[in-house]
Amino acid sequence: MDTPTMAPAAETGVDVRRACRAGRCDGHTSGLAPGYVQANLAVLPHDWAMDFLRFCQSNPKPCPLLGVSETGSPNVPALGADLDLRTDLPRYRVWVDGELVDEPTDLLSAWRDDLVSFVIGCSFSFEEALRENDVPLRHISCGCNVPMYRTGIATTPAGRFHGPMVVSMRPLTPADAIRAIQVTTRLPSVHGAPVHIGFPEAIGIADLGKPDYGDAVPVAAGELPVFWACGVTPQAAIAAARPPFAITHAPGAMLVTDLRNSTLSLL
Amino acid sequence: MDTPTMAPAAETGVDVRRACRAGRCDGHTSGLAPGYVQANLAVLPHDWAMDFLRFCQSNPKPCPLLGVSETGSPNVPALGADLDLRTDLPRYRVWVDGELVDEPTDLLSAWRDDLVSFVIGCSFSFEEALRENDVPLRHISCGCNVPMYRTGIATTPAGRFHGPMVVSMRPLTPADAIRAIQVTTRLPSVHGAPVHIGFPEAIGIADLGKPDYGDAVPVAAGELPVFWACGVTPQAAIAAARPPFAITHAPGAMLVTDLRNSTLSLL
Repeated sequence: MDTPTMAPAAETGVDVRRACRAGRCDGHTSGLAPGYVQANLAVLPHDWAMDFLRFCQSNPKPCPLLGVSETGSPNVPALGADLDLRTDLPRYRVWVDGELVDEPTDLLSAWRDDLVSFVIGCSFSFEEALRENDVPLRHISCGCNVPMYRTGIATTPAGRFHGPMVVSMRPLTPADAIRAIQVTTRLPSVHGAPVHIGFPEAIGIADLGKPDYGDAVPVAAGELPVFWACGVTPQAAIAAARPPFAITHAPGAMLVTDLRNSTLSLL
Repeated sequence: MDTPTMAPAAETGVDVRRACRAGRCDGHTSGLAPGYVQANLAVLPHDWAMDFLRFCQSNPKPCPLLGVSETGSPNVPALGADLDLRTDLPRYRVWVDGELVDEPTDLLSAWRDDLVSFVIGCSFSFEEALRENDVPLRHISCGCNVPMYRTGIATTPAGRFHGPMVVSMRPLTPADAIRAIQVTTRLPSVHGAPVHIGFPEAIGIADLGKPDYGDAVPVAAGELPVFWACGVTPQAAIAAARPPFAITHAPGAMLVTDLRNSTLSLL
């Protein structure tokens, strides 16, 4: 996760966004602009936006909203004064009737005046806080993606959006699990405290070795599997709802904002 | 835990202390003066007090100090303006060379001018906070004492005081365990966050069914045993050090202070 795909130093959110805008960054954002909040992007037509906003409001742990644009506007000033969602991410996915139709590096041709953009908190922020608290992350040491699972926990439906909560799993020693609960409790805008600890089957996960997204990681003897609500939940709800048009970030190619991770902490 | 042993209503710390002083309360304080902080008492001669103070300072999770008296003074004004430690607890234990020699209802004849008193936070406060957060406590529903265990976790020694950390155990569902970690993290002056979760053998507990103090309680399938540092730790350290003279509260017969549990919370 520490191998930036962009040659020049990208120390701030502005640096990364300007590099994307100039066509100098089209890969993962992990490791870029340390300390700055990275986020998920979901873009929907106005007539689907109200349902989705209610879905996020009703499910704040998997869908913590950092910002919502005005209809038709590609800007979210609270997250970055010069931020332009059409150009400032490395890569996007464009969906028509629930099918992936394009993975462009900008949205200049795909943009429409009826689009509403949703910026949703991401686990990169709480993982940074965990590392700063000496809580080791297995998927980082394994050099793979965090394992994610569809659960038996239903989200609260809102209009056309519904579906199971997706969770990410990090195996931790008991002492690290207690510390991780404390650290992530302070960060409700990036998924907050875990939703479960200890018994995968109790939340409908039959086999930790077979994640639905990401990669399996080993759980050692004496470790507890700890589960956090995951930003894949709203993506899966959009895929299931099959709106006529939608845009998301490409996996790992996040929006990098001007917010600092340190300012997200409740205390 | 809700059966007061004193007939008249004891709504405040002052009520309970005055009833003790008048000889109208000689039993357990559990359930009396809801909302008021109850505390452990340890009294040592001045030439043992500095070691014990350093022991508490070095081991704040099992020995969270709420107050320390001046040498020879039975008062701790910060915990109650009229508080007199010689008369205001229901019952005491007097120890000579590590042996229990008396269980008086006051200390008027046992008191000495070289004594220093230590008032130490107690789990009653965090259990009240857990109940207010709808976290059920098994030993309450079973009508017994919380199970306590000597662990393989060593305290930090200080002079003549040392020994293993004693922990109390409460079985909780995963969701309740996460909530309990959050709630007790806010209460460092009454033992704070758990010290372990999940694997008794990892902290030197061979059999949850055989507690060293208190009573065994069942742990159901799908529940995690959650362990908190316990105020029996300093009592065990005093017993092991065998000072020539010491006084403690009798089990369950706590000091009831003027502090409110609600004011202990960090946030």
